[in-house]
Amino acid sequence: MADPRFFKRAGPFRLRELAAAANAELSQGADPERLIHDVAPLDSANGEQVSFLDNKRYLPKLGGSGAGACLLEPAYVERAPPGMALLVTRKPYRGYALVTQLFYPRPRVAAGIHPTAVVHAEARIADSAAVAAYAVVEAGAEIGERCSIGAHSVVGAGVVIGEDTVIGTHVSLEYCLIGRGCQIHAGARIGARGFGFTLDPEGFLDVPQVGRVVIGNGVEIGANSTVDRGAAPDTVIGDGTRIDNLVQLGHNVQVGRNCILIAQSGVAGSTKLMDYVTLAAQAGIAGHLTLEKGAKVAAKSGVMRDVQAGETVGGIPAMPLRDFFRLVVSWQRQLQEKSDRDE
Amino acid sequence: MADPRFFKRAGPFRLRELAAAANAELSQGADPERLIHDVAPLDSANGEQVSFLDNKRYLPKLGGSGAGACLLEPAYVERAPPGMALLVTRKPYRGYALVTQLFYPRPRVAAGIHPTAVVHAEARIADSAAVAAYAVVEAGAEIGERCSIGAHSVVGAGVVIGEDTVIGTHVSLEYCLIGRGCQIHAGARIGARGFGFTLDPEGFLDVPQVGRVVIGNGVEIGANSTVDRGAAPDTVIGDGTRIDNLVQLGHNVQVGRNCILIAQSGVAGSTKLMDYVTLAAQAGIAGHLTLEKGAKVAAKSGVMRDVQAGETVGGIPAMPLRDFFRLVVSWQRQLQEKSDRDE
Amino acid sequence: MADPRFFKRAGPFRLRELAAAANAELSQGADPERLIHDVAPLDSANGEQVSFLDNKRYLPKLGGSGAGACLLEPAYVERAPPGMALLVTRKPYRGYALVTQLFYPRPRVAAGIHPTAVVHAEARIADSAAVAAYAVVEAGAEIGERCSIGAHSVVGAGVVIGEDTVIGTHVSLEYCLIGRGCQIHAGARIGARGFGFTLDPEGFLDVPQVGRVVIGNGVEIGANSTVDRGAAPDTVIGDGTRIDNLVQLGHNVQVGRNCILIAQSGVAGSTKLMDYVTLAAQAGIAGHLTLEKGAKVAAKSGVMRDVQAGETVGGIPAMPLRDFFRLVVSWQRQLQEKSDRDE
Repeated sequence: MADPRFFKRAGPFRLRELAAAANAELSQGADPERLIHDVAPLDSANGEQVSFLDNKRYLPKLGGSGAGACLLEPAYVERAPPGMALLVTRKPYRGYALVTQLFYPRPRVAAGIHPTAVVHAEARIADSAAVAAYAVVEAGAEIGERCSIGAHSVVGAGVVIGEDTVIGTHVSLEYCLIGRGCQIHAGARIGARGFGFTLDPEGFLDVPQVGRVVIGNGVEIGANSTVDRGAAPDTVIGDGTRIDNLVQLGHNVQVGRNCILIAQSGVAGSTKLMDYVTLAAQAGIAGHLTLEKGAKVAAKSGVMRDVQAGETVGGIPAMPLRDFFRLVVSWQRQLQEKSDRDE
Repeated sequence: MADPRFFKRAGPFRLRELAAAANAELSQGADPERLIHDVAPLDSANGEQVSFLDNKRYLPKLGGSGAGACLLEPAYVERAPPGMALLVTRKPYRGYALVTQLFYPRPRVAAGIHPTAVVHAEARIADSAAVAAYAVVEAGAEIGERCSIGAHSVVGAGVVIGEDTVIGTHVSLEYCLIGRGCQIHAGARIGARGFGFTLDPEGFLDVPQVGRVVIGNGVEIGANSTVDRGAAPDTVIGDGTRIDNLVQLGHNVQVGRNCILIAQSGVAGSTKLMDYVTLAAQAGIAGHLTLEKGAKVAAKSGVMRDVQAGETVGGIPAMPLRDFFRLVVSWQRQLQEKSDRDE
Repeated sequence: MADPRFFKRAGPFRLRELAAAANAELSQGADPERLIHDVAPLDSANGEQVSFLDNKRYLPKLGGSGAGACLLEPAYVERAPPGMALLVTRKPYRGYALVTQLFYPRPRVAAGIHPTAVVHAEARIADSAAVAAYAVVEAGAEIGERCSIGAHSVVGAGVVIGEDTVIGTHVSLEYCLIGRGCQIHAGARIGARGFGFTLDPEGFLDVPQVGRVVIGNGVEIGANSTVDRGAAPDTVIGDGTRIDNLVQLGHNVQVGRNCILIAQSGVAGSTKLMDYVTLAAQAGIAGHLTLEKGAKVAAKSGVMRDVQAGETVGGIPAMPLRDFFRLVVSWQRQLQEKSDRDE
């Protein structure tokens, strides 16, 4: 179970309540009134807890699991041990998310401005918002209803934050407009000066960066990630996009809706990611490119050309992932042939 | 135009003033007294705005642009639409930088120490410097004329900062000497303990890191970048060098003058970069190497040997970039041959 | 010598004292009572200073060095210049660490809570601990004897920190338990929400992350590194493990004892590193894998499969390092053959 030092649990809930929340069907023989007290992983769950099976890799753990209930796909029903109540759904991980939200609802931070926060007289903070210790809110900033601003965060002059957005600790927000329902985690830097200067041998010369960062609704930005403001156009992040930790977005980058950018990936200036683009961890995208809708980039890849809609690429430089895998196979054959010759 | 919420615009300026600032020649027929009110990108500029064309990629946008004026190279004069005033220069991006500095001069932060700043009695802060809310300045630190220290930054004991240097928010400065006219962006960590310890199986043992970080004049360091202090020699960054976001420099690294280190690149301990070295994004350099003057490293490359003056390398492990490109071509041919055989 | 602005030196010490501290044997003819005042690198050390030779690369500097004493291996004794006192040991770098700890003992921060720190009434802070300016310590947090909490750090609700642990400036600690004698450097983010959500086309859905980060004793975590808390199991870091700057650990990652994770490396969710695993710089490990005891991953590699005990892997995708080197040789031959054909 979750450490009560950190997490407050709701419940218990009846199996029928969990099934309803998860949009799952309760298996025959299971008692809909049975109480479940918590979520837990398959290998440590007990009879009062609900678990889930989403990744085939963990199928061997199902048979020996002591979980009282389990969310799983129809295909695995036969593999479950007798006595385990099954919550059958084609989307067990989504079901698990919904059930876990039931047990562990997001804590609501009490509204109010901590006495140590420095708030400019010309900033506007909604009454229902929370501003933590030592936060700084500068002139003209606007913070929406039910927002939470973490300790030590700085909301720069003119920055606008939509309703229900949660800002972690030590976040810097400058030159940006942020939508509703976003989560920006500790140490993220939004709106710093882009890397814009001329390369003259007589000395580099700053190009003033007079664009903004415009962030849609429901966006998540991970800890210590950096998003530079635009040079003159804006840097843009579309609704629903999820950005992990230590990710870098250069100036003028446009990211569409519902994209996923995994940890330590980076996008160079003026590149455009359309909707539903995925960058796996440590991927890098060169500047001035377009990745069309649904494009996927494998981990550690280096993309140096446009990517077509729905295409998956990998390697350095990135090529269709299928080709990259064929290339890897041909390398392995080279090594094998050499070994054979050497014998 | 830049969002007035964030940026204060100067001007308007006459075409002849812009030409003078940009070191450009005004095209025949253009009225030198015509007023220009702002800068803007080619595709959104109107008749009162000046744009620029620097990257051939954007040439198709020139003909249809409504910009009142445009900075461009002599070669593209014929491609401009009639009625557009041309500011002709061999360095249009430099010209744009100069013109933009005219419209958007760097805002001067009002001098003074915020009442919430904690300043040690033995720190020296110039009268013209600005120290923002919740900054901490420790014993023996010295902050020069016209410096600006961002909210929540910590200027550690003994740290010296030269004139006109701008420190962003949430910056940590320890064990370092910083020159004049530098910009250190939000969340940068300068002078943390280097990764120095012995590898004994009986347990690792810390090697005290008793060097400093010595930073020249006009250096830029990006958001959330990390520069460790030296182990015994210093970690050094030369005048004019530009470092992007999330870059890592290990202990004892020496970076020359006017180098460019792009986002998420990293340099391992005791490696030396001479003047005018460029590391593209996500490049990595092993320890104890030397990259001679003007060496260039392609994005995502891994350098495991010294690099000669003026040489450009790429790949993992890095080889002359020309060879890397030939290698990529040979991989593509391998794939093609295999496809042909498979048909 | 170390800059007295930043470092306080102890000593001087006699050669016999240094030999005892370093577990080294003093060379014949050296005066055990001779006073040594400092440590210094081979090429700048003077007659009152002790240096060390650990890396063969620096052997050419030995003969011309003016160091009064030098820690080195028996094999290099003959290469030292006459008059240099030799401290002979099979582990000169370890000896240097011990001697340097003698000259530069870790400064003890004075106990006490800075008047600007915000400490919740229900937090427990040991009398001998130091809490710096603007630190925030939330409800239920526990800080052990002789700990030091840096300026602007946030110790979240319920966080436990063991004795003698040093937290740098601007660190965020949430949902974590930290052992004794750890060092967590500036800007590290421990316990942020993991990147957990479902991928439904109807919109992503947060999976509440209800695990913790559990950190053992003697662990070092570098500047601006990020360690996400577990999804339901914990994220775990074992005793003695050393983590460099800008490293990313995803949710549920388990790192064993005495591992080394070098700068900008990253480990995806639910992967397990057993004891003594080394990740070189910028390496990336995919999720749900196991790296067995003593596995080593070369810099910039991408690991997509389990790694056996003691195995060293490299390349993208990672293969046995020996194979990767053979592959590189075969690439070089390809290039050479092509050059020959082209002539």
